[in-house]
Amino acid sequence: MSKEITSRSSDYSQWYNDLVIKGQLADYSAVRGCMVIKPYGYTLWENMRDVLDKMFKETGHTNAYFPLFVPKSLFEAEEKNAEGFAKECAVVTHYRLKANPDKKGALMVDPEAKLEEELVVRPTSEAIIWNTYKTWIQSYRDLPILVNQWANVVRWEMRTRLFLRTAEFLWQEGHTAHATKEEAVAEAEQMLRVYADFAENYMAVPVIQGVKTPNERFAGAEETYCIEAMMQDGKALQAGTSHFLGQNFAKAFDVKFSDKNNKLDYVWATSWGVSTRLIGGLVMVHSDDEGLVLPPKIAPLQVVIVPIFKGEEQKAKLDEKVKGEILPALKALGISVKYDDNDNNRPGWKFAEYELKGVPVRVAIGMRDLENNVVEVARRDTKEKKQYSLDGLPNALQNLLDDIQQSMFEKAKASRDEHITKVDTWDKFVKVLDDKGGFILAHWDGTAETEEKIKELTKATIRCIPLNNELEEGKDVLTGAPSKQRVLFARAY
Amino acid sequence: MSKEITSRSSDYSQWYNDLVIKGQLADYSAVRGCMVIKPYGYTLWENMRDVLDKMFKETGHTNAYFPLFVPKSLFEAEEKNAEGFAKECAVVTHYRLKANPDKKGALMVDPEAKLEEELVVRPTSEAIIWNTYKTWIQSYRDLPILVNQWANVVRWEMRTRLFLRTAEFLWQEGHTAHATKEEAVAEAEQMLRVYADFAENYMAVPVIQGVKTPNERFAGAEETYCIEAMMQDGKALQAGTSHFLGQNFAKAFDVKFSDKNNKLDYVWATSWGVSTRLIGGLVMVHSDDEGLVLPPKIAPLQVVIVPIFKGEEQKAKLDEKVKGEILPALKALGISVKYDDNDNNRPGWKFAEYELKGVPVRVAIGMRDLENNVVEVARRDTKEKKQYSLDGLPNALQNLLDDIQQSMFEKAKASRDEHITKVDTWDKFVKVLDDKGGFILAHWDGTAETEEKIKELTKATIRCIPLNNELEEGKDVLTGAPSKQRVLFARAY
Repeated sequence: MSKEITSRSSDYSQWYNDLVIKGQLADYSAVRGCMVIKPYGYTLWENMRDVLDKMFKETGHTNAYFPLFVPKSLFEAEEKNAEGFAKECAVVTHYRLKANPDKKGALMVDPEAKLEEELVVRPTSEAIIWNTYKTWIQSYRDLPILVNQWANVVRWEMRTRLFLRTAEFLWQEGHTAHATKEEAVAEAEQMLRVYADFAENYMAVPVIQGVKTPNERFAGAEETYCIEAMMQDGKALQAGTSHFLGQNFAKAFDVKFSDKNNKLDYVWATSWGVSTRLIGGLVMVHSDDEGLVLPPKIAPLQVVIVPIFKGEEQKAKLDEKVKGEILPALKALGISVKYDDNDNNRPGWKFAEYELKGVPVRVAIGMRDLENNVVEVARRDTKEKKQYSLDGLPNALQNLLDDIQQSMFEKAKASRDEHITKVDTWDKFVKVLDDKGGFILAHWDGTAETEEKIKELTKATIRCIPLNNELEEGKDVLTGAPSKQRVLFARAY
Repeated sequence: MSKEITSRSSDYSQWYNDLVIKGQLADYSAVRGCMVIKPYGYTLWENMRDVLDKMFKETGHTNAYFPLFVPKSLFEAEEKNAEGFAKECAVVTHYRLKANPDKKGALMVDPEAKLEEELVVRPTSEAIIWNTYKTWIQSYRDLPILVNQWANVVRWEMRTRLFLRTAEFLWQEGHTAHATKEEAVAEAEQMLRVYADFAENYMAVPVIQGVKTPNERFAGAEETYCIEAMMQDGKALQAGTSHFLGQNFAKAFDVKFSDKNNKLDYVWATSWGVSTRLIGGLVMVHSDDEGLVLPPKIAPLQVVIVPIFKGEEQKAKLDEKVKGEILPALKALGISVKYDDNDNNRPGWKFAEYELKGVPVRVAIGMRDLENNVVEVARRDTKEKKQYSLDGLPNALQNLLDDIQQSMFEKAKASRDEHITKVDTWDKFVKVLDDKGGFILAHWDGTAETEEKIKELTKATIRCIPLNNELEEGKDVLTGAPSKQRVLFARAY
């Protein structure tokens, strides 16, 4: 099975697709640019969602649900936001199909069922939500509003890739409303920290926190905070964004509140989101030429146990030990575990299958193991195999899972750090980008023109201006104009 | 606050809307027929979803996610299904908006961005899912497939009501594939039992399990199983359906499998779903003229504690007791509890507010209570108030919550049973329907014509033929033609 996977070195992009499809995470669908998230991939998403949801609730947010459709007149209201998304939105124009008189069994749009006003399938929900908040907010007592939504959104991308860029994707979008600018900025920054915490401590993906340049901001935002991750091929991936929206949406939808002195002012806003795109990043950071490598804290399955036996009698003895003792003990520790005693497949086939699917720990147990009171334990990340005593196995496996989680993060961090290069000349900028890729820390003169020029010349964009960036006098890497700080360039997904 | 609610006797329908809106469950939106599910209502849905999701997983199902859009050619493939939903589906025809040259700031559909094939926003997902299963299924070893999806769907209903009938709603849809008819039928029946268990033991809503007549079947099903509930106004509500789909979708999408003898056959299917509509039923079964009454097992908030005090010093003493002792003890038992010490509102206002929102248990605590080591406990369902000792309060409240759950079910069941009438003459059929409503158990001759005629004359439909129905010779209540069993008629939502 693993032989069917393209290696990273021969074709990174095909390797990625192989892993996603053969690793059973997702597949193409009959709808252009939309994917099917398969049970194994969806369980991974559920695990990620559950952790994030808990983090959101612990920071005071609750979930709600707003309509899928945005009437065109609302979609237009915030001009920059509308401009940003108009080019790639799915539009509902009719509400009925009818029999096609020219073709038996076929249907056609019923021209008599044309909507008076077109409906945009939400690419993001600021418009429909702020139109609703208008009715929820009168006074400072109604603030803050701290709401999140788990939903599907649609952006009609021309070039799509499974998880990384799909026409429909799943995400969460937080939309908060505040009485003061300071409070809104603090919220946007808090949610960025939540995202960084999640990426690093659950996905084992190290990230750089920063702010986007005006060019790269979310359409309608005053400031876009982001976390940026580094893939194994030296390209960056934006893994999450948190926006300070100022009073832009409050003004577009006329949402005012009276403060303690009865003075009216527009409400301050944030929005923040992460999506199924994270799964694409997760795959590209950790996996290898044999398949997926998934961090234990969010893996759909943490431990798989494969019995090795001949005949029913041996099987019965192994069953007794595994079903009677090992499984209940692991489950009692909250470890997700599967005993794969399906006898349609041989152990070797199973080993390859779970390697491909990135299950963090594989336990093999045969008759001799049983006699010796041991099992063979293989960890997916390092491929190391070791005998473990059956005594104290559950706790030992729990420790091993913790160990794998930690060591996957450290490995990814070392690789990421190795992919950050300080560059001071244009020649070197181009050379590093082509030879090795990664993040390039270089001086920038702060103009949109230079940023655009560098993008045209190299396809590298400014990923972010890191938070708490050190100020340092220097000269722009392309123009030589004076610069006050280095920013983070990279080619990106 | 409670005075603003219309009473059931003066206008049942307005009472329902008042509860949903003033009870903070949901609100109208700017999109025709679509609602906003507010945080309080969404938390209720989350609680329901979590219980159902656990039940689905315990019966071997996993979640996945399929595209929102169904290409028209797939939508057409299963003829009856297509015919059933064509009349009410939202259709995406374009993938871009552009600036409207005639109106500054306005957008218009870009005629150059017309889709080659229209996309239907899923009203249900059999088509897109069976088109996918085609690629998942080759052999009996790939079966069964036991997949569920939590998703939004759109049905362009002309007359909408919050929760009960909305253009967009949230639901789950299970879609399973099997090697044999028997297994598929058993699956459809199993899921009906899961729904009945959920309705009765979590929502405290008694239901009658049955099968639909051919007229009332899901479009594309061979058999539709359903659970039917009775509202306080004597109208029935279909609360969940589970369909045995035969080989209809397998044939439409050419999904075959080879069995153990290498013989090819079409795959057998089921689908089953419940939706946010359940919330409408929940409201109508239990609530009263003062507001919502929610069953403890799924209530967004189970216990609210209201302090009664004058001045900071008293507040500090109550805080110490409540925050220091009571809250942690209740939370340790898994009880969801809020201490409402907001001093913008007086206790009387809070009492009315939580009554309106249907919080099962309200605890009031003042200085004298503190001295006497007691609190005042009010249960929402019976409005009974009682002093409870602070000693052992957490366990006492846990027992009270269990008691409320049980007694809500019993009350609803008594009311439902009281709304079942055996009727043998047409005069009485009409009279019972008009005077009291409810379920009518009457003989039916088994023809679609009679069923239609009764519907025309009275608006009553056959809700179901109850499972394990007793056979009994009789005469059709309208036509006098011979009948073998009574069926369940009612006017319905």
